[in-house]
Amino acid sequence: MNDLKQYIEANKERFLEELFSLIRIPSVSSKSENKPDMLKCAERWKELFLAAGCDKAEVYPTDGAPVVYGEKIVDKNAKTVLVYGHYDVMPAEPLELWKTSPFEPTIVDGRIYGRGANDDKGQALMHAKAFEYLLKTNQLTCNVKFMMEGEEEVGSKHLYAFCEKYKEMLKADVILVSDTSMIDSETPSITVGLRGLTYLEVEVTGPNRDLHSGLFGGAVANPINILCKMVASITDEKNRITIPHFYDDVLTISEEERALMAKAPFNVEEYKKAIDVEELCGEEGFTPMEHVGIRPSFDLCGIWGGYTGEGTKTVLPSKAFAKLSMRIVPNQDPDKISALFKAHFESIAPKCVKVEVRPHHGGNAYVSPIDMPAYKAAEKAFEATYGKTPIPTRSGGSIPIIAGFDKILGTKSILLGFGLESDAIHSPNESYRLDHFFKGIETIPYFYKYFGEMKA
Amino acid sequence: MNDLKQYIEANKERFLEELFSLIRIPSVSSKSENKPDMLKCAERWKELFLAAGCDKAEVYPTDGAPVVYGEKIVDKNAKTVLVYGHYDVMPAEPLELWKTSPFEPTIVDGRIYGRGANDDKGQALMHAKAFEYLLKTNQLTCNVKFMMEGEEEVGSKHLYAFCEKYKEMLKADVILVSDTSMIDSETPSITVGLRGLTYLEVEVTGPNRDLHSGLFGGAVANPINILCKMVASITDEKNRITIPHFYDDVLTISEEERALMAKAPFNVEEYKKAIDVEELCGEEGFTPMEHVGIRPSFDLCGIWGGYTGEGTKTVLPSKAFAKLSMRIVPNQDPDKISALFKAHFESIAPKCVKVEVRPHHGGNAYVSPIDMPAYKAAEKAFEATYGKTPIPTRSGGSIPIIAGFDKILGTKSILLGFGLESDAIHSPNESYRLDHFFKGIETIPYFYKYFGEMKA
Repeated sequence: MNDLKQYIEANKERFLEELFSLIRIPSVSSKSENKPDMLKCAERWKELFLAAGCDKAEVYPTDGAPVVYGEKIVDKNAKTVLVYGHYDVMPAEPLELWKTSPFEPTIVDGRIYGRGANDDKGQALMHAKAFEYLLKTNQLTCNVKFMMEGEEEVGSKHLYAFCEKYKEMLKADVILVSDTSMIDSETPSITVGLRGLTYLEVEVTGPNRDLHSGLFGGAVANPINILCKMVASITDEKNRITIPHFYDDVLTISEEERALMAKAPFNVEEYKKAIDVEELCGEEGFTPMEHVGIRPSFDLCGIWGGYTGEGTKTVLPSKAFAKLSMRIVPNQDPDKISALFKAHFESIAPKCVKVEVRPHHGGNAYVSPIDMPAYKAAEKAFEATYGKTPIPTRSGGSIPIIAGFDKILGTKSILLGFGLESDAIHSPNESYRLDHFFKGIETIPYFYKYFGEMKA
Repeated sequence: MNDLKQYIEANKERFLEELFSLIRIPSVSSKSENKPDMLKCAERWKELFLAAGCDKAEVYPTDGAPVVYGEKIVDKNAKTVLVYGHYDVMPAEPLELWKTSPFEPTIVDGRIYGRGANDDKGQALMHAKAFEYLLKTNQLTCNVKFMMEGEEEVGSKHLYAFCEKYKEMLKADVILVSDTSMIDSETPSITVGLRGLTYLEVEVTGPNRDLHSGLFGGAVANPINILCKMVASITDEKNRITIPHFYDDVLTISEEERALMAKAPFNVEEYKKAIDVEELCGEEGFTPMEHVGIRPSFDLCGIWGGYTGEGTKTVLPSKAFAKLSMRIVPNQDPDKISALFKAHFESIAPKCVKVEVRPHHGGNAYVSPIDMPAYKAAEKAFEATYGKTPIPTRSGGSIPIIAGFDKILGTKSILLGFGLESDAIHSPNESYRLDHFFKGIETIPYFYKYFGEMKA
């Protein structure tokens, strides 16, 4: 691997151009208007996989966004690595808060700004480029399979069926994923736990039309007032979720494990300062790292109703809406939680309104064993480039399909993230540090090297 | 008045064309984009007043929307009636719920559909047309002054100063206003009480930027969650407002007066059916008519925050907003209530968020005496055209300037409304019944006749 840094240096402009070509395609999976962009982005990945040296690459249609699959089989008896990533991105809204155009990648102060710069176009492309290096320099000792989906940000709805259908094609010894963060720029980490997710939308209807708030206000239920009361009651004064049986399946984490987790560097004052809040607000009895790592949460992701324009309008609206997510932890089932929420929300609705609960996507939480060979290979790869043993962490985020891979394909995943919290993924001004992008391309080849050398 | 019906019949097409020309001008006072339309609408009223026979009519600029004033002095010793109306309208949003274009008046099944068809272009024009009839047939026995403002829907902010400045010009024995409703098509009523209003906007800020709801959810306060909890706590389980000292100035209504109010025809089942709700939701211990007539209320007129687009976005947003109105009753002071709300809302904000409370317009409640000559004249006018004595009612709506007229000009108002609740003012598909429009033009001349005959 002596020529690795040199190879990256010599090709870095091209690598960036390839990444930029991906960011320029607004592959927002939640918006129907971007449907043509999904296919365009998938086709672009196919080109990139072929250019990097795959024997074959295909765009597979599904009932949703297409899946891109590419592979290079070097030796039928060698180990096989399945690289998973996603080419879809979150909506860029609120657009007015972006300092650069979200779909025109721009480098400012060593960072690439743009929607998907990190999540997951930037992180996924590192794998294609690390593969390209290994192949072109005749150092690839594992078979490599790439699978890029276009529905990760909306729950990977059609990837489960795709995995069932192409189980044989997707067979691998491990799944490698870069879609997470590291603790900080100098502290590599491997994500060994992910929270799951339940996402729902609720609609509260009061009167059958918008009413004059003077003529009716005080006699007729206001659906915004009622919605606020209903969602306010979902958490109590200890910030615990009040839905009956919500915590039934939550596993108790041992004091030993909590003590281990507490060793990860975390400065609460810096954390608060970075987001400019005076106080945090988590479940009583747990630390902030535990709040996001091992405890479920309830967040309103959006709310709307009535008049929201300029100035004033005195109206008692007909309807109010909210979008909400519950992050869940290992052993909680997203469908069960979704059903519990629905039943509870309907049960607490007063008779003066009608409510409708619409479940969106969900996904299971995931915990990865740290004693498997692939974990050790990842550990050694980080040691090779960072000179430090990575810390195993639990992330509050969700990649529901990871639990799905385990279930359908029977294959564990290694979450090798190179992002930083300051990358602001899902937010305006998402970015990815140039040095992290290149360091990722430099670290991944070592994983193949050590994994290839290990006994099965 | 033998030729009155004939005059209306002969001129009805022209009357409608005149009304349509007003509705076509989108004079939405709360939107800065409609500023040119305000002047255009004021100029149109000036033309109409001159055409109807005013000696003079002028558009007076103010620091806000202009005021139109017109007058006809028939005899310096005769009684003077000041007609007040407003040419501004509420925003038409939500546009998608309109069945016809809001600013293109359309007649369907005996109703004129359009924003302002009733409130207040339709009701105000009746006065200009009744005046035209009296003048052209030499039956006008009172001096008439017209004052049309363009900021009623946003609190009449600049009309107070206008009244102060032109106190002498606006001198009158009574103010006549058609901007309210009658009980039903066959039951005329005169509004003798109006609620006042306090309108505010609140902004709750959590983290300084939108965050990933997985990576931060559970540890960091979500401003939507917090906003909902805060506004939910403003009313209790008895639907009473919890702001300390909120009810201090509310006058207790005697059991006798409540018994009188209860005589107005009101069918709770029909009321619920008309707005399609299974149950009402008002303050414990009061009837629906009392809820809107004599008790204060708290309504969220709008709420927004986070992702409100299609599909899903898992975000812990930085900000959440709400617009809210409190209807107040006689003896409550809007500024005092606004200050009480602000202090209370700030006091209940947890340290994990920042809140900002922005007061908008407000206005006092009003009660009109029913023993003054002008009330008796209005009563007789309704008897002449409906054959029934009108019922004195209290409306839940607010026309804050009415209390202002009393204070600044020392002149009482008579609220001679011809609207119906089914006209859906402030809502999509606002309409005004053709028969009500013409019946108003027929009734108003009798008011002048009887009022002119009365001793001062």
